[in-house]
Amino acid sequence: MLEFTFLGTSSGVPTLTRNVSGLAIHYGKAKEWILVDAGEGTQHRVQQAKLSLQHLKAICITHVHGDHCYGLVGLLASAGMNGRKDAITIIAPKEIQQWLEATRHLTELFLPYPLHFIDSHTLNSTFQLDEKLSIDVYPLHHRVPSYAYAFKATSIQRKLDHEKLVQLEIPKGQLWGDLQQGLMIEWNGRTLHGKDFVIENTQHVSAIVCGDNDQPELLKDACKDASLLIHETTYTQAVLDKVGSGPMHSSAKIVAEFAQMISLPNLIATHLSARYHDAVGVQKIHDEIAAYYHGHFYIADDFHRYALSASGELALIK
Amino acid sequence: MLEFTFLGTSSGVPTLTRNVSGLAIHYGKAKEWILVDAGEGTQHRVQQAKLSLQHLKAICITHVHGDHCYGLVGLLASAGMNGRKDAITIIAPKEIQQWLEATRHLTELFLPYPLHFIDSHTLNSTFQLDEKLSIDVYPLHHRVPSYAYAFKATSIQRKLDHEKLVQLEIPKGQLWGDLQQGLMIEWNGRTLHGKDFVIENTQHVSAIVCGDNDQPELLKDACKDASLLIHETTYTQAVLDKVGSGPMHSSAKIVAEFAQMISLPNLIATHLSARYHDAVGVQKIHDEIAAYYHGHFYIADDFHRYALSASGELALIK
Repeated sequence: MLEFTFLGTSSGVPTLTRNVSGLAIHYGKAKEWILVDAGEGTQHRVQQAKLSLQHLKAICITHVHGDHCYGLVGLLASAGMNGRKDAITIIAPKEIQQWLEATRHLTELFLPYPLHFIDSHTLNSTFQLDEKLSIDVYPLHHRVPSYAYAFKATSIQRKLDHEKLVQLEIPKGQLWGDLQQGLMIEWNGRTLHGKDFVIENTQHVSAIVCGDNDQPELLKDACKDASLLIHETTYTQAVLDKVGSGPMHSSAKIVAEFAQMISLPNLIATHLSARYHDAVGVQKIHDEIAAYYHGHFYIADDFHRYALSASGELALIK
Repeated sequence: MLEFTFLGTSSGVPTLTRNVSGLAIHYGKAKEWILVDAGEGTQHRVQQAKLSLQHLKAICITHVHGDHCYGLVGLLASAGMNGRKDAITIIAPKEIQQWLEATRHLTELFLPYPLHFIDSHTLNSTFQLDEKLSIDVYPLHHRVPSYAYAFKATSIQRKLDHEKLVQLEIPKGQLWGDLQQGLMIEWNGRTLHGKDFVIENTQHVSAIVCGDNDQPELLKDACKDASLLIHETTYTQAVLDKVGSGPMHSSAKIVAEFAQMISLPNLIATHLSARYHDAVGVQKIHDEIAAYYHGHFYIADDFHRYALSASGELALIK
């Protein structure tokens, strides 16, 4: 129901293997997707991951730091040069809108499509992107205002009420098909409506995608119905202790402890300091999470794709 | 004397093989280099090309379009996060300074080193970066004010006047070495000064690096003493005729005709529209230049490195 493609998993600076933050989310509508954060080089990752800017429906920016937003203007410019006409919704701190406006003015950037801005500082109700996806915003704790976005995907399965059809002795075939499609049919002198023979099964699944944050416990309410939390683990606890609280990032340990405390079913750790970009570093983050959290978790890497099913099961696709 | 590393050779948008504009120039001082233009992803290319942001001395921006400058803020931010303390000189249209200031303010970007801005709109005398390199600015013709930068590298070779030393019967060895280093020596009761025994040979070589421009003939004066012109060839003439003059870019033909007219010794064509990024496309640009220009030329590709010798000879290093 939700599919996550990591376009960047590095904290602060890009390295040869990991770009700065960017996450593509497909939500069950053909090719449409949304983007969370757009560090510099996100449009390059979009090309490499074979995603299309034509099908990008919305962009959520978690906070104003450059490694989460400096790729936004180039991505929007390229979408324009590729002939995009459809509006893009941008949910972001209002400073992002101001920055885009300053950039458009000073660099004479022309976008041949509209942008719809929603200020994450003041968005305090659920934003319904379309019938398949709603978005809620939760404040986090970082050096600048930072947000988590809760994505709730809805899917409706429609199946025919076979029992009822058999009871009325309606023959299988064309008539059943018409009813399933919601059409009206004539049968034995009666008019029958498709909607009366279809059982709708609505399913929801939620995932929380976080900006930089040093207080995972702020997400307690947000995570109540969530099947997945995607959170930064910039350092191990030992390094966080050495670096100090100045950068206001989380260690693997505090994220893992929080996930364990709330019995979170699935966790994806991302936003790793460059010191953890080799296999040894990833293992350190992995081991620290495993020591404190007994749920299902992954350490994201660039181009990792994960699927979250309607029943809340998470799997690494590739 | 001058070495050019192409970090991006695509016009407008990046593709899987070519990034947007960026060019590193080494000018004979150990590891120090300067950067001309910084499209998005330039800092990624800097890493891939194994250049160090610590040794970046100056940045020249040709014009405000995003494919030439959107990578500037991320690159400066990363230099800061990597611990840079030394100032960087930026020669650019003043709108770039305003954009950087807006970006610093709105995205809370802190740079732990100073920026020295020089406005290319108003720079009308030679800027001496250091004893090895001077920079001149020439206006071009494009949709926004666009500039060419003329880089003049100076190298001074010092060699001993062997004839004079033999005449004075000064024995080879330590004494010759001391004189070469500019020291004073005592010989036969006389004090001899190194400077009187050293022949200085000063050499200059110049290269012109251009921003977007549809009137190469504007460069006639700039190219008078230049050994190399690096100019955009966004399209072939046939495509330019179809696209029309709106984008205000040059075809391979008009650049080649200009280079031929002024008897330019070396030309590097860059800034290719995405339609020419495969071998067939490059061949089209190549053939069109070859038809009108009989000098020495290359079509740049990302990571191409070229050396321009003191005597003005250009070679592709790799």
